[in-house]
Amino acid sequence: MKGTVGELGEFGLIRELTSRLTTTPAVRLGPGDDAAVISAPDRRVVASTDVLLEGRHFRRDWSTAYDVGRKSAAQNLADIAAMGAVPTALLLGLIVPAELPATWATELMDGLRDECQVAGAAVVGGDVVRGEKITVAITALGDLQGQEPVTRAGARPGDIVAVTGWLGWSAAGHAVLARGFRSPRAFVEAHRRPEPPYQAGPAAAVLGATAMTDVSDGLLADLGHVAAASKVRIDLRSDAFDIPTQMADIGRAVGVQPLQWVLTGGEDHAIVATFPPRCQLPARWRVVGEVLGCPSSSAAAHVMVDGKPWASAGGWDHFGAEG
Amino acid sequence: MKGTVGELGEFGLIRELTSRLTTTPAVRLGPGDDAAVISAPDRRVVASTDVLLEGRHFRRDWSTAYDVGRKSAAQNLADIAAMGAVPTALLLGLIVPAELPATWATELMDGLRDECQVAGAAVVGGDVVRGEKITVAITALGDLQGQEPVTRAGARPGDIVAVTGWLGWSAAGHAVLARGFRSPRAFVEAHRRPEPPYQAGPAAAVLGATAMTDVSDGLLADLGHVAAASKVRIDLRSDAFDIPTQMADIGRAVGVQPLQWVLTGGEDHAIVATFPPRCQLPARWRVVGEVLGCPSSSAAAHVMVDGKPWASAGGWDHFGAEG
Repeated sequence: MKGTVGELGEFGLIRELTSRLTTTPAVRLGPGDDAAVISAPDRRVVASTDVLLEGRHFRRDWSTAYDVGRKSAAQNLADIAAMGAVPTALLLGLIVPAELPATWATELMDGLRDECQVAGAAVVGGDVVRGEKITVAITALGDLQGQEPVTRAGARPGDIVAVTGWLGWSAAGHAVLARGFRSPRAFVEAHRRPEPPYQAGPAAAVLGATAMTDVSDGLLADLGHVAAASKVRIDLRSDAFDIPTQMADIGRAVGVQPLQWVLTGGEDHAIVATFPPRCQLPARWRVVGEVLGCPSSSAAAHVMVDGKPWASAGGWDHFGAEG
Repeated sequence: MKGTVGELGEFGLIRELTSRLTTTPAVRLGPGDDAAVISAPDRRVVASTDVLLEGRHFRRDWSTAYDVGRKSAAQNLADIAAMGAVPTALLLGLIVPAELPATWATELMDGLRDECQVAGAAVVGGDVVRGEKITVAITALGDLQGQEPVTRAGARPGDIVAVTGWLGWSAAGHAVLARGFRSPRAFVEAHRRPEPPYQAGPAAAVLGATAMTDVSDGLLADLGHVAAASKVRIDLRSDAFDIPTQMADIGRAVGVQPLQWVLTGGEDHAIVATFPPRCQLPARWRVVGEVLGCPSSSAAAHVMVDGKPWASAGGWDHFGAEG
C-alpha cells in the first residue's frame, strides 16, 4: 500500500484498517455500524480507557507502528486483567496527520489486533480523525466470568504481596534507548512491546486475591494506590526481587541502581496483588512483601522497602516533568 | 477553583473531575480503579468510540466547555441509542494543555455528566493526559434490554423511512456562527448543544425498525450508509420535511437553500430508521421516504430526493476539505 492517510481519505483508511481485523465468538457485531455489540456473559462489563500521545508515550524513532499498536493494546488489556477479568474487546480512537504514511496506520492496527489475540480479545470498532499529532485513544472491555472484581481497596493487614510478570525491564530499555543505544535487545524489546501476564489476572481472582492492580506507573506508585484505597501500609523486601545480570550491567553502565528500575519503572504491566496469608500461589507469582495495618497519615510512607521509605521518587505525575 | 490544569497536577485534576460525577444503579464500580464495572443485564454490551478535536469538532470561542461536554457525550450516546440500546456508561480520554484553566476541564466534565443524566447513563472512568491540543475521546456503552441490535443492514424494499429529532438546525446554527453572528439563538444553541432523541432508539427497536442510524454526517450521507449496507436504494420526498420559518429566513440571509441543511447537515443526531410498510409510528416520527429495490451500481444514486440524485454534495469526508 502506498501513499498517505490524506490521499487514502477517511473512508479508504477505515476500509484498510478494518480489513485487517480478526474476530472472536464474543464479537456479535464488529466495526462498520453506529456501535459494536460484544458478549457480556457475566451480566457485567469491565471497561477502561487510556490515551497515548506521540512524543509523550511513544516515539516513532524508537518504536515501529506495530510496536506502538502492541503496547497501546497491552496497556489497556492489562487494566482489564488486573480487575480479574478476561479481555474481550478493544475500541480505537485514532488521530493521524494527513501526511502520515498509510502503512503506519495499518501497521499500528496489525499490532493492536495481534496483542488483542494474545489476550483473547478483538478490535471491534473505532473512530479515525485527522489531526496534527498521532494520538491513540483506546478503550478495552472485559468479562468477569462470575468472579467479583478485584479492586485496589481490599488489601488487609497480614496479606502477602505477590507479583507476576516483568519489573524494570521497560525502564532499563528506556534508559538504553535514551542514551542512543539499541541493545541489549531484550530490554529494548521490553520497552517497545511489554508482555503483560493477562491470564494471571483472572487466575488471581480465583486464587482469592484481595486487591490487585497492574504496574503501569511503577511498583511503588501503583502499590501506593492499593495502600491508599485499602487504608493499609505495604512493606516490600528488597531481597525478594531478582535483578537479572544484564540489568545490573546496564545499571552500572548508565549509573542507575537496577532496583530503582524494578521498584519505580512503569510500563511493563506486571500484575501485583495481595492474597490472604496462607494462600498457596503458583510458581509464577513471587512473594515480595506484606500488608501492614496502622497507616501513617503521610501518603509517602504507605509503601516501604525493608521497613523504610524508598529514597527516590516513585512513579511520575504526567503533568509534572516530561516522563 | 483557580489556576491551570498544570498547576493542579494530574492527580489533582482527576480528583476535581471525578468529584463532580453522579452515578446510577448500573455503575457497579466507578472511577478510581484499573477499570470500571458496569451492569450489562442483556449479556451483550453495545460500545462506540468518537474523538473530538479542538478546532476541528469544536471551537472554544463558539462553545463553552460545558457545551463541548454536552455535545461530545450526546454524539456518542446517540450512537448507542441508534443501535436500539439504552446508554449506560461513558468513558473519557482527555488531552489538555498544561496552561488550560482548570475550570475549562471541570465544566467540560459537568457537561458530560449532565448529558449522561439526560440519557440515563453515567461517566464511569477515563484518562487525562497533558498535550498541546484539547482532545476529547469518548466511549459510550449501552444495554439492548433483550432487543436485537438494529443495524444499518436490515432495510428492505417497501419499508418506510422515518426520522425523529432535529434536522438541519445545527448546520443552520453553524452558518450563523461562521458569519460572526450569535442569533437566532435557537439555531446557535442547536449547534452548540444537540438534543438527540435517545428514547426513540430503543423504542424504534420495539416498534420493529429494520435498520437505524443517527444523523451525524447529514441525512443523505447517513442514509447512504444504510442503503449500501442493506443493498437497497432510498427515495426521500422533499415535501415531507418541514422547514421552520426562521430557518428559511437564515437561508435567505446567507444564500443557502434550507433543505440543503436538512438533507446534508450533520451533528443534530436525529435518528432515522426504516420500518415495515404497515408499521404504525408514534406522532414524533415523520415518514420522509421509502426503500426501493434494485440498487444501481453507482453509490451516488443510492439515496435520492424526489426520485433524483440530490445535486449538492452529501455529508463530508473528514480527510477532505476542512469541515
